[in-house]
Amino acid sequence: MQKTIKVFAPATVANVTCGFDILGFAVDAPGDEVILSLNSTSTVRILEITGDDGQLPLDPLKNTVSVAILHMLKFLNSNQGVDIVLHKRMPLGSGLGSSAASSAAGVVALNHLLDCHLSKRQLVMFAMEGERVACGSAHADNVAPAIFGGFTLIRSSHPLDTLDVISINTPKDLYCSIIHPNIKINTWVARGILNPMIKLTDAVTQWGNVAGLIAGLMSDDYALIARSLTDVIVEPLRAKLIPGFYDIKNAALEAGALGVGISGSGPAIFALSNSQAVATKVVAKMQESAATAQLLSETYVSKINSNGVKIID
Amino acid sequence: MQKTIKVFAPATVANVTCGFDILGFAVDAPGDEVILSLNSTSTVRILEITGDDGQLPLDPLKNTVSVAILHMLKFLNSNQGVDIVLHKRMPLGSGLGSSAASSAAGVVALNHLLDCHLSKRQLVMFAMEGERVACGSAHADNVAPAIFGGFTLIRSSHPLDTLDVISINTPKDLYCSIIHPNIKINTWVARGILNPMIKLTDAVTQWGNVAGLIAGLMSDDYALIARSLTDVIVEPLRAKLIPGFYDIKNAALEAGALGVGISGSGPAIFALSNSQAVATKVVAKMQESAATAQLLSETYVSKINSNGVKIID
Repeated sequence: MQKTIKVFAPATVANVTCGFDILGFAVDAPGDEVILSLNSTSTVRILEITGDDGQLPLDPLKNTVSVAILHMLKFLNSNQGVDIVLHKRMPLGSGLGSSAASSAAGVVALNHLLDCHLSKRQLVMFAMEGERVACGSAHADNVAPAIFGGFTLIRSSHPLDTLDVISINTPKDLYCSIIHPNIKINTWVARGILNPMIKLTDAVTQWGNVAGLIAGLMSDDYALIARSLTDVIVEPLRAKLIPGFYDIKNAALEAGALGVGISGSGPAIFALSNSQAVATKVVAKMQESAATAQLLSETYVSKINSNGVKIID
Repeated sequence: MQKTIKVFAPATVANVTCGFDILGFAVDAPGDEVILSLNSTSTVRILEITGDDGQLPLDPLKNTVSVAILHMLKFLNSNQGVDIVLHKRMPLGSGLGSSAASSAAGVVALNHLLDCHLSKRQLVMFAMEGERVACGSAHADNVAPAIFGGFTLIRSSHPLDTLDVISINTPKDLYCSIIHPNIKINTWVARGILNPMIKLTDAVTQWGNVAGLIAGLMSDDYALIARSLTDVIVEPLRAKLIPGFYDIKNAALEAGALGVGISGSGPAIFALSNSQAVATKVVAKMQESAATAQLLSETYVSKINSNGVKIID
């Protein structure tokens, strides 16, 4: 039996403009590396975390990856010990699903090491428990795409036994540009800024765009995808938390992006384009615009990741 | 040049549970017959209407079909005279898109007679003007499926120049059962009963289901269609206007329907099933249940109509 496994854990973009709380996709960059080893102590331990500037807890009851793994072991009625090493290579608290990447990687790796063939849906449920520790609620819109890869619809997730994850076709030429401005947005503030009540007319606009986005993705219709990538409910509120957001967005659209939005609760901003060349140009213009607003930033360009967490070794 | 044309105008089911104001489909039954003839008087006239119990106006400025045709002629800068005969074979004010069927039939027929090759999108815009006369606002969720056929997404329709109609794949074994209880629901009451503000959490549930329904239709996934055919926003309010609605709905689901909902603003109720045999059984159970609530009713079973308005002669 294999004792050690190394996996790649992709960053994920949740919401995807109109799909607040139901849609996400995985990217090839950035992404973390997670190493899992079976040990003989019957305890789950975090041996090492790099790249987090000491921000992430080593306590297995507090870290998202170990909590997900503990839930999985409990489900399996197993007292298998596990050692975990996390190499964080994506910014924390950026809206790129950093905690989800770790939990997703942990459960996929353990599923492989123990050869227990649990379904992806089941793995998402364990990883959501990791999210609960990290974010206070068990969201699936980052862990599901991190595990399934590609565009992922979470039709339902509350209560948990109604979890319904559907893989949505990813058009092959779709590329993602990401800019991460170096500011901090507290997730609680980002959620607190939302209105608990919204206009029915706005909701109708939003679900028309959600329907259009799904139809566009499933039929490789880039023009329809572009027309549908609009958010009239969340973006107008959260944009206020990101200085220069609309300038960055307009710069991306002028450079040819199909659409632009806040990744998760931000501050990262993503753009989708229909070729690598356009995505590369788009990200440069976004960074240029951010610089005008005195924002330092990191950028990434990648294809949509179609596999989710991937075994490297 | 052909001078007279006879067309079949299908009934349509708007909303389709979760897709309030953005989704509709056409059926093969019931449907009207519309006869259009070019005349040499340069006026648009309604010669005859049958099957309406004298309820529909013969005044061309007040009838939905002539208003749509007048808008089309104005666009064409034409003073062509047109004679119209309507044979109404579907109940009026039933939620089955009776007025939309007439306007849609009128503009499709005229497009053919004048051989002017206007796009379906353009024809929808004229037919929407007919809807404006009939309902007070220019909705597209009946006229678009009546003209396009099959499942039709109206991603956007306000303002009118943003009209974006997308044909959605219809799984080939999908059948529709319709029951029309003989009660009247005033469209104004049906719209007035809606809350202008809704909970964000409900909206998220709804657009998750909208996304699931589109994905299910486009991938012929009947189980996903069934899971997605849910409306947490409009149905709970409008159901109150239809005595015995939930009993009828449950009877249909117990008989094997994939999902059930109010057609448009009712009182007609539709059910979708994955075979003709199930749809036939479903409609019988719905009628039985309606009878228990002392409701007389007409019923229809048909395939989803994939062509929209069809030239008969």
